[in-house]
Amino acid sequence: MRTRVTSFAPATIANVSCGFDIFGFAVNSPGDKVSLKLIDSPGVIINKIYGDNGKLPLQANLNTAGVAAIEFLQKFKPEAGLEIEIFKQMPLGSGMGSSAASAAATLFGLNYMFDNIASEIQLIEFALKAEKVACGSAHADNVAPSLLGGFILIRSYDPLDIVRLHFPKDLFCVLLHSDIEIRTETARKILPEKIKLKDGIAQWGNVAGLVAGLFLEDYKLISRSLNDNIIEPVRSKLIPYFDEVKNKALKSGALGCSISGSGPSIFALCRGNEVAKKVATQMKNVYDAENIESKYYISPVNEQGPKILVE
Amino acid sequence: MRTRVTSFAPATIANVSCGFDIFGFAVNSPGDKVSLKLIDSPGVIINKIYGDNGKLPLQANLNTAGVAAIEFLQKFKPEAGLEIEIFKQMPLGSGMGSSAASAAATLFGLNYMFDNIASEIQLIEFALKAEKVACGSAHADNVAPSLLGGFILIRSYDPLDIVRLHFPKDLFCVLLHSDIEIRTETARKILPEKIKLKDGIAQWGNVAGLVAGLFLEDYKLISRSLNDNIIEPVRSKLIPYFDEVKNKALKSGALGCSISGSGPSIFALCRGNEVAKKVATQMKNVYDAENIESKYYISPVNEQGPKILVE
Repeated sequence: MRTRVTSFAPATIANVSCGFDIFGFAVNSPGDKVSLKLIDSPGVIINKIYGDNGKLPLQANLNTAGVAAIEFLQKFKPEAGLEIEIFKQMPLGSGMGSSAASAAATLFGLNYMFDNIASEIQLIEFALKAEKVACGSAHADNVAPSLLGGFILIRSYDPLDIVRLHFPKDLFCVLLHSDIEIRTETARKILPEKIKLKDGIAQWGNVAGLVAGLFLEDYKLISRSLNDNIIEPVRSKLIPYFDEVKNKALKSGALGCSISGSGPSIFALCRGNEVAKKVATQMKNVYDAENIESKYYISPVNEQGPKILVE
Repeated sequence: MRTRVTSFAPATIANVSCGFDIFGFAVNSPGDKVSLKLIDSPGVIINKIYGDNGKLPLQANLNTAGVAAIEFLQKFKPEAGLEIEIFKQMPLGSGMGSSAASAAATLFGLNYMFDNIASEIQLIEFALKAEKVACGSAHADNVAPSLLGGFILIRSYDPLDIVRLHFPKDLFCVLLHSDIEIRTETARKILPEKIKLKDGIAQWGNVAGLVAGLFLEDYKLISRSLNDNIIEPVRSKLIPYFDEVKNKALKSGALGCSISGSGPSIFALCRGNEVAKKVATQMKNVYDAENIESKYYISPVNEQGPKILVE
């Protein structure tokens, strides 16, 4: 057992075009860092949060990292106490899985301290409870890839059924964050309650094509399958210049481009780092021309998930 | 070039539970057989149809094998003529892809006679035109697996995008045909025009799970994914004792059980021949007890597709 650890968990892209609510993947960076220290008296204390501009609650039972730690300790070590410092290294409310990454880093660190006492699925369940605090609903498409790395399918929520998908190693992600605020709640509210059966069929054709493309390492099939005619047309209206950014991404060689999580971040998947660099620049140019503050990140699909930075 | 050939194309299971309109797979038997003979004068003549109880049209432009041959010859050999004999070796209107198999056998045989002048995708397009004659709509989920063999994804119809999925070699299919008549048109009419988004999400989760399960050869994942909460609950009402048959199949070890095509045939996927035999008997028992005439077929998922029987 260790009493101190600093751990990192990656940002994640949820939904992934046609795969609304079922796909998510992790990137190498950005991600959140937490420093954990076991203390003698029970309870979870968040000492400090860096990089959140004072926006996140220090109260543990209102903070994703705090809730995650409370859930873990309640289950495995009710007598233990924990102090947490959180280093937010990505924008909040960005559609990059910020709240999930803080919870994942905390859970991975805690589990490491206690010699991997919890199973992966238990960690995901704790993180889901934390997500519920942050977003009002327990979606696994950020927490699962942040905790496991890789390209993840959430086949079902009840019971929770998580599947690691194979993916080609040259699959790079461009993640463009812009200075636009979208509340996950708003993004949820504008979703249609019903969809046309024929749109559903097109969607599950693309979902099947994307999974097959990932396993077959068939980039063209991946590209043809990265189409969402249900959610993206509705939600993209909340993101200024989305169509322009997407068009630039596709024209400069991206396999596909869609909304990251519930936005406003936009992701593009690319074959290789060189294409990704070109795509990223072209995407950012759109916002630059409109004087919208933005920043891009380029990363292969992350294989490792969280990691221990300092023991 | 050969002037005579006898060819076979397999029955197929379309829809496959969660994969309405996008999945189909072939079985080794039953299937349809055709004998083809080139003649000097242009035109397609159907000389004789065996095993259809006089139900199928001899007029070539109204018969799937005839239309398929007309389409092929128009494109590649407009000066050639063809005589066809059709040996129906499976029930008509059974949801086993009977019309597709006759067209596929004809096209495969013709293509063989002309040294594979047509591409796979061209053959599928000819067969789709033939399906349109038989069913009123051009669905590829029978013709593609009958022509290609294997487990097939139709990612998109426009443009047509066909993907061969990997599948485990020990995947067996029980196909139970009963003496119940369902018109494809009726089965289409009762489909909902709209579905709930949340049901759509569950469906594409299962579709993704099924594709991943096939590639990973993970029978448990295949089993968990063989769920359809959209089409099966509606269409199964047209099939007497469907729920009883399905329950028996699952209780005796099937991975999943659903409607084959638009019914009335019911299929079950199983791991291995031994389980399949047990499942088949249990399924048939339900109909036997109700004095409903039925017959079952057991086969691994077919890998080869059509074949030449006699040159």
